[in-house]
Amino acid sequence: MSLSEFELIKKYFTAFDSGEGVFLGVGDDCALIDIPSNKHLAITTDTQIENVHFFKGTDPYLIGYKSLLVNTSDLAAMGAKPYCFTLSLTLPSAQEDFLSMFSQGLFTLAKKLNIPLIGGNTTKGELSITISAYGLVDKGKALLRSMAKAGDSLYVTGTLGGPGLAVDCGYGKVNVDESMKDTLINKSMLIEPRNDFACAIVPYATSAIDISDGLIGDLKHILEHSKVGCTLYVDKLPKALEFEQLNLSEDYQNKLCLYGGGDYELLFTCSKDNELSISKLSYEYNVPITKIGVINNDSLILLNHGRIIHLNERSFEHF
Amino acid sequence: MSLSEFELIKKYFTAFDSGEGVFLGVGDDCALIDIPSNKHLAITTDTQIENVHFFKGTDPYLIGYKSLLVNTSDLAAMGAKPYCFTLSLTLPSAQEDFLSMFSQGLFTLAKKLNIPLIGGNTTKGELSITISAYGLVDKGKALLRSMAKAGDSLYVTGTLGGPGLAVDCGYGKVNVDESMKDTLINKSMLIEPRNDFACAIVPYATSAIDISDGLIGDLKHILEHSKVGCTLYVDKLPKALEFEQLNLSEDYQNKLCLYGGGDYELLFTCSKDNELSISKLSYEYNVPITKIGVINNDSLILLNHGRIIHLNERSFEHF
Repeated sequence: MSLSEFELIKKYFTAFDSGEGVFLGVGDDCALIDIPSNKHLAITTDTQIENVHFFKGTDPYLIGYKSLLVNTSDLAAMGAKPYCFTLSLTLPSAQEDFLSMFSQGLFTLAKKLNIPLIGGNTTKGELSITISAYGLVDKGKALLRSMAKAGDSLYVTGTLGGPGLAVDCGYGKVNVDESMKDTLINKSMLIEPRNDFACAIVPYATSAIDISDGLIGDLKHILEHSKVGCTLYVDKLPKALEFEQLNLSEDYQNKLCLYGGGDYELLFTCSKDNELSISKLSYEYNVPITKIGVINNDSLILLNHGRIIHLNERSFEHF
Repeated sequence: MSLSEFELIKKYFTAFDSGEGVFLGVGDDCALIDIPSNKHLAITTDTQIENVHFFKGTDPYLIGYKSLLVNTSDLAAMGAKPYCFTLSLTLPSAQEDFLSMFSQGLFTLAKKLNIPLIGGNTTKGELSITISAYGLVDKGKALLRSMAKAGDSLYVTGTLGGPGLAVDCGYGKVNVDESMKDTLINKSMLIEPRNDFACAIVPYATSAIDISDGLIGDLKHILEHSKVGCTLYVDKLPKALEFEQLNLSEDYQNKLCLYGGGDYELLFTCSKDNELSISKLSYEYNVPITKIGVINNDSLILLNHGRIIHLNERSFEHF
């Protein structure tokens, strides 16, 4: 039996709608929140759509989890501490098995980050999830794309290319066994949040972005906003662990790391003076980081084992 | 020629992304805003979908306008002054004629309310628009659904039933000429915002909601949250002007006013002592209001010319 709109909201989406700073959660025309006077509120919003951001038939738990992750990843990229979020859910029908799994995945991450779901809406239509996420950051301290300086080191957290490979496997462009395919798809959805580490590096980093559209595309945003260039060491890129187990060409591995996208790792710059502090935080927060380049005053140069290589791909764009 | 994702955002959606309180608008991972320390931030979000909230082929100007209006209407229902908004736009393709008209409609209302578009995202898929709107209200002063008291008067702004009639005409359930049909559909989308009036009545009203799902459905939210009843005078309902020109039965007119929905008028309660102040504000802000009921301690009773009538419809729900 199908639930009514208000029944489904009550059953699946009101269990965690209060917390510090939430004056009023789900159930009125608006939610009401408090913002400490020394903080900026960081706001981001992102949409996940079936067959664009995830394959039809994907475990709803993974869809719920990743729909929130892509938003909290934007908060990390500003150095903002996650505060709360809203959910706009469009569904073909109010199927309880979907809603139960979806909400479990969603709240698994919400509880990990301690952010209540303070409001939202449900609509009937093709499956689409839009979340807006809210974070707090000390005024004047947010990590902008525009503050990278020549001489800064460029770092990335975690590994790259796994989610890109998962997509190619999903489309049958790469042949792997079902177990490897499942592993890759699961890992591409159940991404580890970088929020605690991101907040910790705020005093030491100069700029940051999260990698959603591919390393090159997102790096270019930093370079354009900061009016700088970068020497990128392609042979230093931290590759997904699964690359070793599969017989992938070096070119294809590099392509996945440079253009694959969906990594939701943090790409950030810091001055050489702060590299030791950053390294200590990487150890303290158990977040692996890799130095993959140096900011320059010129242009984007890709070095692979010391030789310049040229770009012939473009990053993901929707249109 | 189709625009890229970043080109279309730049061309159509960045012209009005700054204003008081906006530290950082469109273009980074998040927007950053300031919230005055004596204010709550009111947050609401709503989705508009083709063939659910508007007919396929509707003028994109109207879609842009109404997509924002349904959200700012929720701010009005809290007595919160509109502050800024974000847009998540899902489109089948980046058609410039659509984007141009859509953004004109959107910004017409945004400029009227003086609220910048501070961020968002675009995605490829079936046409769907999710907006989150933000407002400011003095701490402890928001108009909640839960504060209506027995003896309070129940008021509604504007007229009711027009948007419900527009939907029935669109589906061919009512036969009207094309000119009347266009008038009804245009008026059902180009709804007058009630925000200034809503903020003005904050000191005098006890509770409020905006009518999106139909008068009865939304009134019930106030009654349930406030644990009260209401005597509603059905013969006092302010009917859409077009009703007079069409030969509609009284029953059908009442049904449209009670259950039609999509009115986005303000339904609010106030103590008898404050009725004069409210009337003065109605005059000052040029917002017509009608007293349509009295809150009681019992249940919802519908009186039509002094006789009790019974409910046999339900309000709009998506599932």
